[in-house]
Amino acid sequence: MDFYDGAPQPLGFKTLAGNIGIKDGRDDFACVFSTEPCAVSAMFSQNLFVGPSIKLSKQNLVEGQPRAVVIVSKNANVATGREGLANAVEMSHRIADKLDIAPHEILVASTGIIGHPYPMDKVRVFVDKLDPVSAGCDFPAVASAIMTTDTVAKHVAARVGDATIVGIAKGVGMIEPNMATMLAFFFTDAALPQPVLDSIFRKVVDSTFNCLSIDTDTSTSDTAAMFANGLAGAVPEGEFESVLHELALELVKKIARDGEGATKLLEVCVNGGRDNAQAKRVAKAIVNSPLVKTAIHGADPNWGRVAMAIGKCEQDTDIKPERVRIAFDDLEVYPVQLDAKDLERLSAVMRGEHVRISVNLGCGAGEAIVWGCDLSAEYVSINADYST
Amino acid sequence: MDFYDGAPQPLGFKTLAGNIGIKDGRDDFACVFSTEPCAVSAMFSQNLFVGPSIKLSKQNLVEGQPRAVVIVSKNANVATGREGLANAVEMSHRIADKLDIAPHEILVASTGIIGHPYPMDKVRVFVDKLDPVSAGCDFPAVASAIMTTDTVAKHVAARVGDATIVGIAKGVGMIEPNMATMLAFFFTDAALPQPVLDSIFRKVVDSTFNCLSIDTDTSTSDTAAMFANGLAGAVPEGEFESVLHELALELVKKIARDGEGATKLLEVCVNGGRDNAQAKRVAKAIVNSPLVKTAIHGADPNWGRVAMAIGKCEQDTDIKPERVRIAFDDLEVYPVQLDAKDLERLSAVMRGEHVRISVNLGCGAGEAIVWGCDLSAEYVSINADYST
Repeated sequence: MDFYDGAPQPLGFKTLAGNIGIKDGRDDFACVFSTEPCAVSAMFSQNLFVGPSIKLSKQNLVEGQPRAVVIVSKNANVATGREGLANAVEMSHRIADKLDIAPHEILVASTGIIGHPYPMDKVRVFVDKLDPVSAGCDFPAVASAIMTTDTVAKHVAARVGDATIVGIAKGVGMIEPNMATMLAFFFTDAALPQPVLDSIFRKVVDSTFNCLSIDTDTSTSDTAAMFANGLAGAVPEGEFESVLHELALELVKKIARDGEGATKLLEVCVNGGRDNAQAKRVAKAIVNSPLVKTAIHGADPNWGRVAMAIGKCEQDTDIKPERVRIAFDDLEVYPVQLDAKDLERLSAVMRGEHVRISVNLGCGAGEAIVWGCDLSAEYVSINADYST
Repeated sequence: MDFYDGAPQPLGFKTLAGNIGIKDGRDDFACVFSTEPCAVSAMFSQNLFVGPSIKLSKQNLVEGQPRAVVIVSKNANVATGREGLANAVEMSHRIADKLDIAPHEILVASTGIIGHPYPMDKVRVFVDKLDPVSAGCDFPAVASAIMTTDTVAKHVAARVGDATIVGIAKGVGMIEPNMATMLAFFFTDAALPQPVLDSIFRKVVDSTFNCLSIDTDTSTSDTAAMFANGLAGAVPEGEFESVLHELALELVKKIARDGEGATKLLEVCVNGGRDNAQAKRVAKAIVNSPLVKTAIHGADPNWGRVAMAIGKCEQDTDIKPERVRIAFDDLEVYPVQLDAKDLERLSAVMRGEHVRISVNLGCGAGEAIVWGCDLSAEYVSINADYST
C-alpha cells in the first residue's frame, strides 16, 4: 500500500511544500487543502504543555469545519508563551488569506524543538511567495516535508469503492501517543457524514496509533486528523473502516520500525486479560520496558524480563504468575523450563526484524496488541545532542 | 560516611561471604547474622512476579523475628516454579542449621538473572563448608559479594549515641523501587522497640529508596530490611531517624551514580505541588523520561523536554503551564526566554556530575525530591547481552 507512481489520489485535494528556513535546505513546511468543504475528525495530545498549534486547531474545530492543514517541522512552537500563540495565529491567517478560505478552516500542526519561537520574518517571506493556484497533488513531498528525526517518509494509500484514502505520518521519538500519534493525517474523497467519520476515525486511532510507544514520552504536539471532501461519493462504511484500519496500522508499523535508533519492530500481543484495558496495560508495560527493549536489541534470550514487566502492573493482583504463559513467536518460554538449545532458538527468534511476544494472562477474555521497537545506543546518541 | 579502616561496627553482628560458583571467582554469597535476637523491619518489591526469596522472607517475618539475612547474587531465583521455592527453603534450612538458629529466623534475598534455577549441587557443597563460629565482621566484603552489574560496593556507617548503624546496598538496573529498593540492608546495635523501628524505617525508605529510579523497571527482587539487636542500648529516636535518613540517602545517591551506564547523578526537586503525591508524580515523570535522561547525558540544553515530561501527567489538570517555573541549578529556563549565552550556561550546568532540576508547579505546598541518572549508550550495551 506504499505510494508508487500512479498511486491513487483522492479527488479535490492539493498540496504545497517548501522551505521556510528552519531546516537547512530541505522542506520544513507542508500544506494540504481541499477545494471543497470537508467532514473532519481530529484528535490531539493530552500533554498539559500542548502548544499554540493544538490550541488554535481545537478552537478552529469548534468554530468551523477545517478543510486545510498546515504543518511546520523542526520547531514545535511549544512553551513559547503569548508570542508563540500570536505567531501561530498570524501564520494561519496569512495562509488562509493565500488559500482564500476562512482562518478557522485551517488546522495547524508543528513538531520539533520545544521552547523556541518561530522565525517570523522568514515565515512571512515564505507565505507571501506561496502559490496555491498552481498547486499540484504530491503527498510524498508532504510526507517528506513533515519529517524531523524520521529516516523515511511515511505514506500509504488505498481504494474503497470509487473513493481513495491517503495517509501520511511522521514521528520517531517522544512517542507514546494518548488519543493521537505524533502527526498523522488522512485525506479521502469518500462522502461520509461528519458523525460517522468521527466515530470510525476515533475507533481506528484507538486501536492503532494509541497502541504505539517508542519511548514512553508523550509529545506536546501529537495530532491525528482525517479530512473527507465527498467528491467520490458514498462508500460502504464497514469496508471504509476496515481499509482505514489497515492503512493506519501500516503507518504505525512504519513509525515503530523507524523509531529513533530502532533496528526491529516489536509487537506485543496480550490475551487472557480480565478486560481489554488490563491487556493493554500489561502489553504497554512490556513494550515500554527498557530492559525488554535492550534484550531484544541484543537478541539476548533473557525472557525473564518479560515476566518482570508483567509483574510491574502491581495493581492487577488478579494476575497470577502460575497461570501466565509467555511466548516469543511460537516458542513458549514460560512456564516451561528452557534448555541451552531452546535458548539458542529464542535468540534466533529475537534476531529477526519483527519480534512478536505473546502473553496469556489466564484471567479472562481481554486482549490487546501494541507496537514498539528496540532500544539501541543509537537512540541515546540521537537524543543526547538533538538541539545542538 | 563511607567505610574506612576503623569505621564503627555495630556490636553483635557477624558476616560471612564466599563463592558458591554462580559468579566466576568473585563472592556471590553473603550472610549477616546477629548473635542476639533482633527487632526487624522489612519491605519488599510489589512486582507480581516476586520470587521464592521474597515469599519465604515474608513468611518468616510473620512466623518469627529474623536475625539473619542471606543474599545470593547473579541468580534471582524468580519465575522458577515449585522447584525454585523448594530450593530456597532447602538452602535456608541448611544455613539455619549451620548458624544454629530456627529456619524462620532467616531472611533470604536473591538478585540476578530471572528464570534460572539455583545450581543446588554447588549450593549444598558451599553451605556444608560454612564456618559461622570463626566468622568476623566484614561489611565491605558483604557489600562486594552482593554486587551484580554494580561497579562499586555501596556501604555506609554512622554513630548515634553509643550505637552504630551500618548500611549496605546494591542495584544499578531494573530499578524503580516500590516499597523498597533492589537490595538494601541496615544493621544496628541500637535498642529500639519493634514498632518504633518499623515506623522509622518505613518513613525513611519512603523518602529515599522509593524516590529512586534508574530505568522505570521495578525489580522482582527488591528488598530493604533493617535489623536492630539492642546491644548498645537505647538511643534518641529523633536523632536515630535523622542519621538513618542520611545514610539511606547516601546509599540512594551511590546507587544512582552507579546506575547502569550512568555518568551523572540526576536530582529532581519539585515544589508547589497540590500535594506531595502530585509533586512526586511529576518528579518521577521527569527523572524517568528517556528524552530528559539522554539530553542530560549529552549536556544538550534542550530544557523543553522537562516541560514535555511535566505535561505527561495528564490527569493533573490543575497544573497550568503559565504558572510553572523550571530551573537547572539556579538558572531559570522557563518561562524566561533564553538567549544563546544562556543556553551555553545551561549546557555547562548539564556537564556537571550532579545535575539538579527544580520545578515549581505553582499549585500548592506539595514537594518531593527524587534521584536518578542519565541514559547512555553504555546502558544499552550492558543490557543487550546481560544473560550471554
